Amino acid sequence: MPTLVMKFGGTSVATLDRIRRAAKRVGVEVAKGYDVIVIVSAMSGKTNELVGWVGETSPFYDAREYDAVVSSGENVTAGLMALVLQEMDIPARSWQGWQVPLITNSAHSQARIEEIPTENINTKFAEGMKVAVVAGFQGISPEGRITTLGRGGSDTTAVAFAAAFDAERCDIYTDVDGVYTTDPRVSPKARKLEKIAFEEMLELASLGAKVLQTRSVELAMRYKVKLRVLSSFEDNDETAGTLVCAEEDIMESNVVSGIAFSRDESKMTLISVKDKPGIAAAIFGPLSEAGVNVDMIIQNIAEEGLTDMTFSCPTDQVKRAEKALNAAKEAGVLEFDELVADTEVAKVSAVGIGMRSQSGVAAKMFKTLSDEGINIKVIATSEIKISVLIDRKYMELAVQALHDAFELEKA
Amino acid sequence: MPTLVMKFGGTSVATLDRIRRAAKRVGVEVAKGYDVIVIVSAMSGKTNELVGWVGETSPFYDAREYDAVVSSGENVTAGLMALVLQEMDIPARSWQGWQVPLITNSAHSQARIEEIPTENINTKFAEGMKVAVVAGFQGISPEGRITTLGRGGSDTTAVAFAAAFDAERCDIYTDVDGVYTTDPRVSPKARKLEKIAFEEMLELASLGAKVLQTRSVELAMRYKVKLRVLSSFEDNDETAGTLVCAEEDIMESNVVSGIAFSRDESKMTLISVKDKPGIAAAIFGPLSEAGVNVDMIIQNIAEEGLTDMTFSCPTDQVKRAEKALNAAKEAGVLEFDELVADTEVAKVSAVGIGMRSQSGVAAKMFKTLSDEGINIKVIATSEIKISVLIDRKYMELAVQALHDAFELEKA
Repeated sequence: MPTLVMKFGGTSVATLDRIRRAAKRVGVEVAKGYDVIVIVSAMSGKTNELVGWVGETSPFYDAREYDAVVSSGENVTAGLMALVLQEMDIPARSWQGWQVPLITNSAHSQARIEEIPTENINTKFAEGMKVAVVAGFQGISPEGRITTLGRGGSDTTAVAFAAAFDAERCDIYTDVDGVYTTDPRVSPKARKLEKIAFEEMLELASLGAKVLQTRSVELAMRYKVKLRVLSSFEDNDETAGTLVCAEEDIMESNVVSGIAFSRDESKMTLISVKDKPGIAAAIFGPLSEAGVNVDMIIQNIAEEGLTDMTFSCPTDQVKRAEKALNAAKEAGVLEFDELVADTEVAKVSAVGIGMRSQSGVAAKMFKTLSDEGINIKVIATSEIKISVLIDRKYMELAVQALHDAFELEKA
Repeated sequence: MPTLVMKFGGTSVATLDRIRRAAKRVGVEVAKGYDVIVIVSAMSGKTNELVGWVGETSPFYDAREYDAVVSSGENVTAGLMALVLQEMDIPARSWQGWQVPLITNSAHSQARIEEIPTENINTKFAEGMKVAVVAGFQGISPEGRITTLGRGGSDTTAVAFAAAFDAERCDIYTDVDGVYTTDPRVSPKARKLEKIAFEEMLELASLGAKVLQTRSVELAMRYKVKLRVLSSFEDNDETAGTLVCAEEDIMESNVVSGIAFSRDESKMTLISVKDKPGIAAAIFGPLSEAGVNVDMIIQNIAEEGLTDMTFSCPTDQVKRAEKALNAAKEAGVLEFDELVADTEVAKVSAVGIGMRSQSGVAAKMFKTLSDEGINIKVIATSEIKISVLIDRKYMELAVQALHDAFELEKA
């Protein structure tokens, strides 16, 4: 039998009625002749409640106990899903992470999957079971303790199962009906993409489009798992949603596939830094230790051995960054005149694998923004992405203008 | 190190604050030098919520999935308790049933404990762990599926651990501060017992005093586990609560230890049953198959081969009993004129191991009720118990009169 993996997120299993609706979709695939592995999240809100309780016990909690507590929500939905499927006369049973077993390393609360032996579940498929319902997000360490894969880890569970069981496809059911050229709330012209390349999806995911956990996309890319994102609240056929797939499976695509943005960015500038060898390490070492996620970096060479260093980071990390840099200054590791934070910026990015073969994308992007009178503060580029920092108040305008300029409303 | 088992029920772990309060009590015992095994229930209300969801999936749900779902509440409290203990600098970790492992048979939702290997936990005690927090109510079947022990099963978990680890004592923390001579809400003169014999506790538990699960008392009796029932909401010293122990550990006791009662009883009478060999089986066979818990049975020999058969059962099973008996009549298995149900009765019982050696208890009981003008409808006796069925409206009066007559307010 061909195998299909179907993953249902928290909003898709939030109530018993929604679990029943999800089970009906599973039933449709079983009727087509698939052996189905269903990966479930916890009911929406449950994991947050558990995480909250653990946080209240101590700021320095034991990650092993965190995992034992927060993994419990998925056990509930896995059992309920199996029961609902059985009531539909579909042979099904639930599996908790340790029962599969989904073997991870011992990095509790951020564990990496090491192995998924297929024997236990395949034996049951051979005996006539049609659906294995697996609790997402959780595994078991070599020490026999429960581990979790980090928030959004059920996506990664699903892709890993698809790889291990050589599934025909991995369908991720969520509360959006696919991946869009940009957020439809910002640009009404946003269009749902039929297909998107893994590399593009990775850039979009890491740029804040929270459709899929980044790790799940990486894993899908490595094992060539066909990943489909689709809505659990709409009627779907086999072409519904967006297929995330290898570049070679996309015949023709726009140069730019999507415009991503991130609202809560800040720009920090160290003015008149004494320029000497190792100065970058002296700045970014302390920031890294303080847990600041530095994104873009730009250095202006100034005169007389002094330089200005600019970088961006999420706005909620600005205070931490200031503390770390001022401490470095007091410790004499770093010399600078002033630290200026601009917390009113946003990042806007154009993403597309077509950029590899077509030039002029950057020029078009800059001209479009300039035509709208939007000043660019920082630029960063990768092979398939151009990002700019701009004043936050122009963010929506910039997204709409770029969406128009690259004609993303057209397929 | 001597070992102590401490069990906290649902109301004692209902919130994080209550878990902290319970953890403080654990800390007191650790400071005394004990290795402590803590058994926790789910937060009060959680298990009912899960049971409700399972019931909604299907009236004929798979008990294996029921167990996978309803066992999750205990995993949450076990992890949280371990975290709170760690925050108090007490080395602790949580164990789920399958991790211990607590091995049961495969009778899902009503599983019996078969074995508790002590090696895993004892290894950790030897390494310096002071508290093993174990999720109550759950185990693992020989097939590797999660099992549960039936409602109230955490008491049984606690006693089984005390037996397996040869614990000095098993302390059951609950929302009452011990076992009383009768329910204080019915008789204000009710007195807390310092000690009670296993046999007496068994009769009281099965008579509706819901302090301990009956199975836990049976298990404690078999393995001579000293069981203490005490309040998690009061300051306790070592003599707090009630010790449930072997008869020989109680130096002197009253003839009657307590007056138990059960409000929701009904009396059913089959009138003019054709008396022939096998008639009792013809009546009680169908009742048993219909899941009716028959308690007392009385048979009046009448004339001409006809007899009246009276029995009692919980009021909510009367409809089921009527259906089963009328079906037997229609099937020709059973002949009777009429079936009369009296749903307005209650059961009152005097319990005490002293009855074994002292006569006159029954006489005193009957006279006391007669003096109050209370008519006795059915009588049943065991070695250490006398039970009567009376009109429900006299129940409180009967309990108070008997409590006075046997001078239970005096130690």
